[in-house]
Amino acid sequence: MRIKAISAAMVLAFSQYIAADEGMWQPHQLPELESILKSKGLEIDPKSISKLTEFPMNAVISLGGCTASFVSPKGLVVTNHHCAYGSIQYNSTTDNNILENGFLAKTPSEDLPAAPGSRIYVTKEVSNVTDKVNEGVDSLTGKARFDAIDSKRKQLVSECEQDENYRCNVYTFHGGLEYYLIKSLEIKDVRLAYTPAMGVGKYGGDIDNWMWPRHTGDFAFYRAYVGKDGKPAEFSKDNVPYNPESFLSVSAKGVQEGDFVMVTGYPGRTNRYRIASEVDFVFNTVYPMVRKHNAKYVELIKENAPEGSQALIAYESTIASYNNYIKNFGSMIESFKKGSMYSAKQQFERDLIAWINADAERKAKYGDVLTELSQLVSQAQENYVRDMMVGYIHRSQMIATARKLYRLAVEKQKPDAERERGYQERDMPKLKAGLERMTRRYDETVDKAIMLYFMELYAALPKEKRIAEVDKQLQLEEGFDKANHQTLLDQMYANSKLADEKVRLWMLDLDLEQLNQSADPFMQYAKAIFAVMKQIEDEGKELAGKQQAARPALMEAIIAYNKSQNKPVYADANSTLRVTYGTVGGYSPQDGLVATPFTSLEGLLAKNTDVDPFNAPKKQQQLIRDKVYGQYTGGMNTVPVNFLSNVDTTGGNSGSPTLNGKAELVGLLFDGVYESIIGDWDYDKNLNRSIHVDSRYMLWVMDKVDNAQNLLDEMKIVK
Amino acid sequence: MRIKAISAAMVLAFSQYIAADEGMWQPHQLPELESILKSKGLEIDPKSISKLTEFPMNAVISLGGCTASFVSPKGLVVTNHHCAYGSIQYNSTTDNNILENGFLAKTPSEDLPAAPGSRIYVTKEVSNVTDKVNEGVDSLTGKARFDAIDSKRKQLVSECEQDENYRCNVYTFHGGLEYYLIKSLEIKDVRLAYTPAMGVGKYGGDIDNWMWPRHTGDFAFYRAYVGKDGKPAEFSKDNVPYNPESFLSVSAKGVQEGDFVMVTGYPGRTNRYRIASEVDFVFNTVYPMVRKHNAKYVELIKENAPEGSQALIAYESTIASYNNYIKNFGSMIESFKKGSMYSAKQQFERDLIAWINADAERKAKYGDVLTELSQLVSQAQENYVRDMMVGYIHRSQMIATARKLYRLAVEKQKPDAERERGYQERDMPKLKAGLERMTRRYDETVDKAIMLYFMELYAALPKEKRIAEVDKQLQLEEGFDKANHQTLLDQMYANSKLADEKVRLWMLDLDLEQLNQSADPFMQYAKAIFAVMKQIEDEGKELAGKQQAARPALMEAIIAYNKSQNKPVYADANSTLRVTYGTVGGYSPQDGLVATPFTSLEGLLAKNTDVDPFNAPKKQQQLIRDKVYGQYTGGMNTVPVNFLSNVDTTGGNSGSPTLNGKAELVGLLFDGVYESIIGDWDYDKNLNRSIHVDSRYMLWVMDKVDNAQNLLDEMKIVK
Repeated sequence: MRIKAISAAMVLAFSQYIAADEGMWQPHQLPELESILKSKGLEIDPKSISKLTEFPMNAVISLGGCTASFVSPKGLVVTNHHCAYGSIQYNSTTDNNILENGFLAKTPSEDLPAAPGSRIYVTKEVSNVTDKVNEGVDSLTGKARFDAIDSKRKQLVSECEQDENYRCNVYTFHGGLEYYLIKSLEIKDVRLAYTPAMGVGKYGGDIDNWMWPRHTGDFAFYRAYVGKDGKPAEFSKDNVPYNPESFLSVSAKGVQEGDFVMVTGYPGRTNRYRIASEVDFVFNTVYPMVRKHNAKYVELIKENAPEGSQALIAYESTIASYNNYIKNFGSMIESFKKGSMYSAKQQFERDLIAWINADAERKAKYGDVLTELSQLVSQAQENYVRDMMVGYIHRSQMIATARKLYRLAVEKQKPDAERERGYQERDMPKLKAGLERMTRRYDETVDKAIMLYFMELYAALPKEKRIAEVDKQLQLEEGFDKANHQTLLDQMYANSKLADEKVRLWMLDLDLEQLNQSADPFMQYAKAIFAVMKQIEDEGKELAGKQQAARPALMEAIIAYNKSQNKPVYADANSTLRVTYGTVGGYSPQDGLVATPFTSLEGLLAKNTDVDPFNAPKKQQQLIRDKVYGQYTGGMNTVPVNFLSNVDTTGGNSGSPTLNGKAELVGLLFDGVYESIIGDWDYDKNLNRSIHVDSRYMLWVMDKVDNAQNLLDEMKIVK
Repeated sequence: MRIKAISAAMVLAFSQYIAADEGMWQPHQLPELESILKSKGLEIDPKSISKLTEFPMNAVISLGGCTASFVSPKGLVVTNHHCAYGSIQYNSTTDNNILENGFLAKTPSEDLPAAPGSRIYVTKEVSNVTDKVNEGVDSLTGKARFDAIDSKRKQLVSECEQDENYRCNVYTFHGGLEYYLIKSLEIKDVRLAYTPAMGVGKYGGDIDNWMWPRHTGDFAFYRAYVGKDGKPAEFSKDNVPYNPESFLSVSAKGVQEGDFVMVTGYPGRTNRYRIASEVDFVFNTVYPMVRKHNAKYVELIKENAPEGSQALIAYESTIASYNNYIKNFGSMIESFKKGSMYSAKQQFERDLIAWINADAERKAKYGDVLTELSQLVSQAQENYVRDMMVGYIHRSQMIATARKLYRLAVEKQKPDAERERGYQERDMPKLKAGLERMTRRYDETVDKAIMLYFMELYAALPKEKRIAEVDKQLQLEEGFDKANHQTLLDQMYANSKLADEKVRLWMLDLDLEQLNQSADPFMQYAKAIFAVMKQIEDEGKELAGKQQAARPALMEAIIAYNKSQNKPVYADANSTLRVTYGTVGGYSPQDGLVATPFTSLEGLLAKNTDVDPFNAPKKQQQLIRDKVYGQYTGGMNTVPVNFLSNVDTTGGNSGSPTLNGKAELVGLLFDGVYESIIGDWDYDKNLNRSIHVDSRYMLWVMDKVDNAQNLLDEMKIVK
């Protein structure tokens, strides 16, 4: 099948028909949406949003995983508290617990260095490189095709990164129908300028996570620093605050119910165009299994790391992350059962096929695309459970470390450009940081218990489903025996030195021959299974290469079909800069209940128990009791704390500025409601709601609670 | 201090000033409320509601603990499913599981006998007997006063019950300011006519208990039977359906938001006039302790009764009941902390004292009442913790049974009229039923484990706080020793025969001398501690006698004060017939959330998981999917399932008819929302909401799901 890339301009030319506020739009698509954006309440020219180098888009930046924005000419950056959490924690000590108490630099000279590796990325150029990536691949299939595309992408990135001030990536759109090269300025000296207390920034904690009503002051401020020459530089006391090309004004007036809002940011990943059989497999097999195993994972940590132990501290962030997934997947499974996503998806596919078959030319072109992709998807699912179980065993930090080091040594034998992604020179800082981080996140008892548990589950698979070499190395050929395997693991852990950070870092520089001679049992395991794991990986690439042909073909058909229905198409989120727009408003989470769009200071106080995570600072409590609202009510009889809107967002959007029709910052996107978690797969206009910190609350806390007048003075506040 | 009873007429003469819909009014108070009732939407003459022997009040009946109403000329009675639960369970067998599947008698001849002891009480006469009760008691104090009042009350009851068709009780109002003798027809042949399936009647189960949104079809139908002479008679196949003096029409049109509703029923108990120091003690000491101990109690049962065991089945209703209290007390503690009840109560008392002191005559009359009552209350609290801990030990069913039998033998030495309440001839059926019930609700391991646990807690009290005889009998003089006391209990349980129902029933007929000679270790314990427990009881009566003087004096002052403020006074609930009125409407349970007043069939279906307690019958699910609403929408686009109103209700109101302005039945009261549980102490107009089954849903289920046309035909349906 021959795939022809179609231009983005072709994708969108029917903005007048858009109904719901669904969609994570690429900036260049916005002029096409002009009429709807204006009717909804956008006051600035939509064309200005489409230009990355103009206001307001050049004020919107990525932290890698989170979004942020410039809010002063002196490089002041606002993002979510949870996005700056690592840096706040990094600077927190027993004597000066800024995580608990908050922190304010009274002048930039008091700014604190952010956590190592913190970066600010300013998108500078976006180029459609589809033709370059696809050049000459039409004749290829399977792994050959995968490798060709991969090689082209690496080459484009490498060329782009010749200027060391930039970080570049090639992003896939529509499963490979389009590729864009994105070039971002990489600011390497990031500092913490201000954070409210944890009782503001993480008020409600994990209990309120994904929940409404919400009262979280999820904001914190970084400052970007560059060398005296204005170019990115590693941390130095001689560096100066970065002067951004533009910055956002912050509104003290805020929004009202029904107001237009838009959110610009870097949403991570959505799966809105997956086919029905993928949805079926993910929701009926993958998510329930992962949820169960993750719950067991947390249970095993808790069983093996006693309350108050150092081990438990080491695993706290792991537990939080796993619990997050358990809640997330729980919501999705729940929503999936209640909703009609699957049947709607099936119906869509029936309609699509009918439309394709109704025209001879279409039939010739797209007649087989869905069937073909379905077969590839089904092949990919074949060994899924095996790979998941092996994957859980390989989460042992000892195995993971050994495998990473061994793979690096293998890759280092090739020229940099030909190495596997993740093992190139550009990835070395990240690899090293991971090896260092393990020191704070590892406990032998816990690691061993988890490995033992999942070995038993893996061993329960039918023998022909298992991987012979893994069985051999872990002595699972005759099945699992708890006592024997406990002894085996005891020996492996006792004879390994990988728990020692110095050893890990020393091994980072060893070559393959040296590692092959290592007596470390985990390194021997990594070596023994390398070939078979590589083979499995290659089989995966073979399938991926085939999918890289099939999926764009299907997307092309879907786009053409949707166009015939006057339905717009936006690409799935892929961590690139997007714009979503919508309206401030509540929703009905269930029959008999309505979530109203704003929460208030009084509601925050009503939740307060003085026990974490409902422990607002005493001063704040008193200000609320005294009704000291300042100029931050926006006409309401209180200061609004958080608000709801129907903008279409997902992970990665955290910290995104929420803008009003004048592109003034009226809030920070920081979460979605529980019922919208499944939104990554399916936007439901009745349930998909994002949660924002209200700019009035942020300014009120800065002004009244934390006396951050110095920051307010350098910002532009619209009153 | 001299107490003068004031008439009820004096209490209320300022209805025009009533604002909130708070109040559980005695029917005779209603004419005074005429103007407000009419302005709210009452269409019938308020005077008619004030007469117990006229429509609609003579259709409202008590089941003893629950309320019900006649809905046909053939004695058909509607109440809550949870009020008829025991009778449904009683008739349920493995072969014919009517609890699970529901039941409909196609003709009265198919009606099933209700659970033994089921009664219907029709209030016939209410007489103010304050003067009779208080005759000659003014000169008495303490226990002498208590006993004199008790004796008068028993005498009045005994005289009234000369006609064996009636059951009589003297009820205390305003802590003893007034006494009413209430005479009720006692219908003894009660039968089950119809119940929907558990998936309707208990939809949402314990999870949704006290919660909104709610979708419970909490209704079931009894039928009252009498002898051929029309008089109450024990069950006989020759009995005939009772022809009530009147019955309620049932509305198929239902109510809308903002509509007037009133609820007539038998609310059990409220504490709205308790003084600040009582509130403080209850919410800061009693409830937290009871909640903790009850949680432990449930934990001990679960630890000692393995999943799937017969023991666990035996304790299922105990666990449900304890969990109910844990949730209930949890809500009250939560609401108390959030709310301002205590400070408002303190402010009220300051205002009251200022008002009393502002007038010499008032000061002379009421100047000391609050201080005096406060002292008595504080005395009563002195040994509270000790008595609570002993009380938990005495919850051992072996001890409780022995003490009950022993007490009965003691009381039987006196003439019936002089016996302690609960041990008179009229109480014998209930005593016997209790001894029989133990067979199904007892497990030695569980009983012993609970006793052992609370012995340890009791023994941890300071020695001077403990009861010497209890210490001696339980070998706690030198403190608690787990191993030794385990052995002691093992011996006591091994040597007792009280676990045998035949033995318990045989002992019911033994006299004191015989029991004194019993070698049963629990009977010996009961005998040994009898004197000291009697002494503690008498000390309680001494205090109660003093309170019986002090509390009415305070209430008299409060009533006079409130009158001066144009505030109405209704008596605390005391299981007597009351009327409360209000409006259909939602509320905001917390900042950012609004509970809307109706739930719908669609919401019910959305909750459905096919797993208990969210397992609606398949037929019902299909009817909802097919939008088969019949004539039961009342103008809505669905059939409403449950609705909210601000009527003032509490336990005992369950099953009460909810009436519209024409006194047509538009719903059944069955619960209050979580935030209103504290309403027993304090009615909050923003949070106090009752939950009703909508009559439209009830009729829809009867008509469409259960084909109960025979019942619908004998009822009067207003379309």
